Amino acid sequence: MPVNLPPLPPLHPVDGLRLGVTAAGIRYEGRDDLVVIACAEGTRAAGVFTRNAFRAAPVVVAQAHLAAAAPRLLVVNTGNANAGTGEAGLRDALDTCRLAAEAAGVRAIEVLPFSTGVIGEPLPMDRIARAIPRALDVLRPDAWAAAASAILTTDTGPKGDSHRLELPEGPVTLTGIAKGAGMIRPDMATMLAFVATDAAIPLPALRTLVREAADASFNRITVDGDTSTNDACLLLATGRGPALAPGAAGWPAFREALFGLFRTLAQSIVRDGEGATRFVTVQVEEAADGAEALQVAYTIAHSPLVKTALFAGDPNWGRILAAVGRSGVRGLDIRRVRLYVGDLCIVEQGGRAPGYTEAAGQAAFSRPEILLRVCLGRGEASETVWTTDLSHDYVTINAEYRT
Amino acid sequence: MPVNLPPLPPLHPVDGLRLGVTAAGIRYEGRDDLVVIACAEGTRAAGVFTRNAFRAAPVVVAQAHLAAAAPRLLVVNTGNANAGTGEAGLRDALDTCRLAAEAAGVRAIEVLPFSTGVIGEPLPMDRIARAIPRALDVLRPDAWAAAASAILTTDTGPKGDSHRLELPEGPVTLTGIAKGAGMIRPDMATMLAFVATDAAIPLPALRTLVREAADASFNRITVDGDTSTNDACLLLATGRGPALAPGAAGWPAFREALFGLFRTLAQSIVRDGEGATRFVTVQVEEAADGAEALQVAYTIAHSPLVKTALFAGDPNWGRILAAVGRSGVRGLDIRRVRLYVGDLCIVEQGGRAPGYTEAAGQAAFSRPEILLRVCLGRGEASETVWTTDLSHDYVTINAEYRT
Repeated sequence: MPVNLPPLPPLHPVDGLRLGVTAAGIRYEGRDDLVVIACAEGTRAAGVFTRNAFRAAPVVVAQAHLAAAAPRLLVVNTGNANAGTGEAGLRDALDTCRLAAEAAGVRAIEVLPFSTGVIGEPLPMDRIARAIPRALDVLRPDAWAAAASAILTTDTGPKGDSHRLELPEGPVTLTGIAKGAGMIRPDMATMLAFVATDAAIPLPALRTLVREAADASFNRITVDGDTSTNDACLLLATGRGPALAPGAAGWPAFREALFGLFRTLAQSIVRDGEGATRFVTVQVEEAADGAEALQVAYTIAHSPLVKTALFAGDPNWGRILAAVGRSGVRGLDIRRVRLYVGDLCIVEQGGRAPGYTEAAGQAAFSRPEILLRVCLGRGEASETVWTTDLSHDYVTINAEYRT
Repeated sequence: MPVNLPPLPPLHPVDGLRLGVTAAGIRYEGRDDLVVIACAEGTRAAGVFTRNAFRAAPVVVAQAHLAAAAPRLLVVNTGNANAGTGEAGLRDALDTCRLAAEAAGVRAIEVLPFSTGVIGEPLPMDRIARAIPRALDVLRPDAWAAAASAILTTDTGPKGDSHRLELPEGPVTLTGIAKGAGMIRPDMATMLAFVATDAAIPLPALRTLVREAADASFNRITVDGDTSTNDACLLLATGRGPALAPGAAGWPAFREALFGLFRTLAQSIVRDGEGATRFVTVQVEEAADGAEALQVAYTIAHSPLVKTALFAGDPNWGRILAAVGRSGVRGLDIRRVRLYVGDLCIVEQGGRAPGYTEAAGQAAFSRPEILLRVCLGRGEASETVWTTDLSHDYVTINAEYRT
């Protein structure tokens, strides 16, 4: 039951990119589960990957290949994460690259593998080997929507966004897709995002851009505080369109559109979060620095007690206060802390705000979209994190998934 | 539905301590909810308190009084935590001490207040004022069991332990009670423990003892990762019995018994954890140091995905591995990590252990008491944390408690 998950908008083709989608039968029957993305020569790419020490084999290989060469081909499979698979898993990820390279006429090091699905089971290499040529046979520039569906696991719907910008340098297209319904679902490991533009962007700028955009989007969402073994987000710039770089007239508008697209994809993952019944924005203001603001925001966003209260639509502000109090901010003066839901002040001077009524709180907490604002009274830094509530369906989904 | 919560054993009186229990009608009808504990002159006391910045008013006052004087009287009320109550709450906590001091003929600074219950509501001072003299009227040395029940909030049963030791220095009694059913329940804020002995123990040794014993017990349990605004654990030594100090012949046996008693109380809180269906021991071994071992143990114990899998009795080892991987241990070599449930090896060399079968895993994870062992292959430090699973009842209890 996603919370206002937007329907897939038209996803504009990106000049220089073609996508091929097919059914490999890896885990799911009767649906597409393998995607190849072919990049024109000259495409530059940068990515951010999971920081989990148990990186899945495809993540290890994709990071190594990306560091060594510009990618020509991405191979994404759904249904099996190739994680927790030891040395054999690494061989399978490398074999995937080799097979795809031979079929496409590129070098293996120019292929990036991505996997999402069950952990701890060997990748069915025979099915993948058979599927790759089929996917390459149907490469099309306009298969973004089909790809957005093919990369899903237990998501309830596809996630994508697309913009066409008219910049002083000329028209630029930005298109991206993502999958994920929890920050981790090691059985269905987890978040993948592929974003592309036809702009020509220098590699150092592209690397900075993907890191900063991911920091402001995918690294600001949490469903359950877990970080997957397979998380990956790739930004591709084919270079077929106008040249753009920091300092260019159109750069600020491009950057803003890119950040917006990343944010839409990231928020879509939260809106489709496991068992989500509410979309919650946690905004921490007046922090001494950003790290402190994030620390408080995540402590609130991860608190099972806050999340169950949000599920209940219960204005249980004591739980939010207690989360702020245990977040580890040194020397926090609780008399300066204020807590708001939307514009409604709930707490000030260490206790309930004089004007606050339970009825007003109840009304604010019963909405499907909730903004929690905590002002720390310590400085000027602020950070925002997006999360969900913790519902019975979350427990059901995660307790009953494998059994 | 507690998991093997032991019935209350006989709680031996501690020479020099008397307890009075009465019904103040603070929140609950038809049950005792106010306890006074009177300490003989010469009693020494040391405590550990919540590290939450939003310390409740009684915690602030108890810490201040304990630092300034030896306590003669403890006043514990249930049903109202006097937390999130600002300046008025502090006045109420101080007034409680003053009223009790006048009634008992001691100084206000010799009174320690403790509160547990709903957050954010003013303490009903009239009822407390009426109840304190009634509780003082019924002081008895053998009211430990009645007190263990009177301090409960949403716990399903009382928690206590008691030992009589024959030491070279003479016979010593150790008795303690505790309440708590979640590491936090800000509505029912949260954990209180009172442990007493008749031994005469120097104050510095007593302070070290309570800190170390709490670190090995109450600070090693977690239900939901939250820390209450009201947590307090007090160790009283009346001095009516033999003198004991580090270096004494009986000290090691005394210390061991005390640690055991603290552990029993702490584990009882987990066994009675909100919605708990399993009692889970997370043991991290071969860590470089204790901090690292704890970091890994808590990441596992707090992971909603691990906890929902435990609820399902699902040997979902990928989730445990992913929690180890994201715990932030620098330079973790995943090929050296081994994962066991009891003696059954599940993971080694970065993947599933060759001898592991899903059937064996299923059998091990379906027990009510589960031991998860993670060997990091980095050193010789180890730490143990006790926790519960995350069940539908946890969501129900915490979502529906106030509404």
